[in-house]
Amino acid sequence: MTLNVSDIGEKELVKYIIANSKDIIPDDTAITSFNGSNLISTCDMLIQSRHFPKNMSYFDMGFKAVTVNVSDLAAMGAEALGFLLSIALPKDLNLDCFKQIIDGVLSACDYYSIPLIGGDTNEASEIIISGTALGLCDKPLLKDTYNKDDLIVLTGDIGIAALGFNLEEMNNIYVKKALKPIARLNEGIQIKNAGATSATDITDGLASELYEMKKDGFGFVIYEEKLGISDEYKRIANWLNLDYLDLVLHVGEDFELVFTISEDNLRNLGIDYKVIGKVTDSDKIEMVLENGLVEEIKNKGYEHYVSG
Amino acid sequence: MTLNVSDIGEKELVKYIIANSKDIIPDDTAITSFNGSNLISTCDMLIQSRHFPKNMSYFDMGFKAVTVNVSDLAAMGAEALGFLLSIALPKDLNLDCFKQIIDGVLSACDYYSIPLIGGDTNEASEIIISGTALGLCDKPLLKDTYNKDDLIVLTGDIGIAALGFNLEEMNNIYVKKALKPIARLNEGIQIKNAGATSATDITDGLASELYEMKKDGFGFVIYEEKLGISDEYKRIANWLNLDYLDLVLHVGEDFELVFTISEDNLRNLGIDYKVIGKVTDSDKIEMVLENGLVEEIKNKGYEHYVSG
Repeated sequence: MTLNVSDIGEKELVKYIIANSKDIIPDDTAITSFNGSNLISTCDMLIQSRHFPKNMSYFDMGFKAVTVNVSDLAAMGAEALGFLLSIALPKDLNLDCFKQIIDGVLSACDYYSIPLIGGDTNEASEIIISGTALGLCDKPLLKDTYNKDDLIVLTGDIGIAALGFNLEEMNNIYVKKALKPIARLNEGIQIKNAGATSATDITDGLASELYEMKKDGFGFVIYEEKLGISDEYKRIANWLNLDYLDLVLHVGEDFELVFTISEDNLRNLGIDYKVIGKVTDSDKIEMVLENGLVEEIKNKGYEHYVSG
Repeated sequence: MTLNVSDIGEKELVKYIIANSKDIIPDDTAITSFNGSNLISTCDMLIQSRHFPKNMSYFDMGFKAVTVNVSDLAAMGAEALGFLLSIALPKDLNLDCFKQIIDGVLSACDYYSIPLIGGDTNEASEIIISGTALGLCDKPLLKDTYNKDDLIVLTGDIGIAALGFNLEEMNNIYVKKALKPIARLNEGIQIKNAGATSATDITDGLASELYEMKKDGFGFVIYEEKLGISDEYKRIANWLNLDYLDLVLHVGEDFELVFTISEDNLRNLGIDYKVIGKVTDSDKIEMVLENGLVEEIKNKGYEHYVSG
């Protein structure tokens, strides 16, 4: 039997590339030391049928293409240096739609103060937006450089976009976050400066990111009650026949940061945050549920919200 | 009547992006000055149905995705710093095909001594390979900084790939060049060091590139006899019912460099080259044909070889 790429999944494909390249560091973002600093570079491609919900505006597609890339800079604590845009469009796309996408890209570049420095256009059967974000950082935050007893901290609420993808009614915070997430660029710099020991952005769900961060001999314990899941949130999830913990742990797309930091250093941090757990030496990723039971968090992987 | 993106064409779409961004320089490649040097960055996306001929191997697809990006560094005289790969694949693609594409990417990175520093994979209905090349350059070569009486010079033969796209028989230099073009990275650095005044890579045909290079008050004269078009070349084109000058001027894809340089500085250049013309003040782009007649070269634009 011959295997297809879908049989092994995207993370395994990336692992294959990493294993066969001597120069890639296994992170979402490349670090190239350069004139006494580090050049940070990252690229992410968004594909209409896969990454853009049907009710997303063209403006928001352009905005999100910048956000997903800037979020990788944020996770390292990098400053933004420049953004490159490579866009492919169906030939029968209305010119106004193209202009709205570009408006979205430019608005996002303004919002994050990252200059759009290059662009390329192409023709394809659906909209494809590939971005590259470049940044600078003296000491980039990696994913797995934490110590035992470091606190595990979030920059904001998670699961919000996950719920939004399932709602028809547009005018609520859930759908707004799903359609126009914001990367935590400034927060990333402050987190790094406060002395965080590691960080990543939550694009594929908290569970998946924790598995990405895990190293041998270390574990994490997360407290459900500290995730700040509101009663309203649970009610809506229930009404949609969805498991609220599934949404919070396994979907992502909020572009919040999860980071580790010592209790002492956390006192220096002047942004809103939420302590949700601690680094352990259990070699497991566990959650203490609201009812007091302890469960191992499974790595179910990320399931895209647009069904293929 | 509402316009679609295909009504105005890719170059106009790029112009719209440039006109609306305060930070883009109108070149194929971005220049970001940084700690006394310049970071050069460029991105290009290749799409299977549009950029890969049917007889192209998966290995050659991967190789070409690096070449098209490295060629933009070559045109500036930049040194290679790093390559980022963003690849989308149909889910039923055989895993071996994926591995062959990655082998092609890695072989090209080895060939150009450019480290593959990052990667991202995705799912799409056809193969899409988006690359970003990063480079360094003290004084990047631009497209339009030439002087009157500078010579117009090529790094090699043009039109070779153009003919190759039209041939069924695989075992000849034309098809080989069409399927596996090579970027002139080292030549670009030597051209810059020799004191060239401007340069670009020929991806869209010599005519199109000369129109990209043209500035007000200046013109170019090209001599057909200096293009080195062989009798064999003319014979094959004729046999295919194709106009050989059309192939040489309007197709491209050879990834040779065209550059301008003073006669004195050209003597310092230790690579193979071909002087094909001169910068004038005629405000026209002209060609002296082999029969002595002078014709204006039209900007017919680039026509992709894979019909859509």
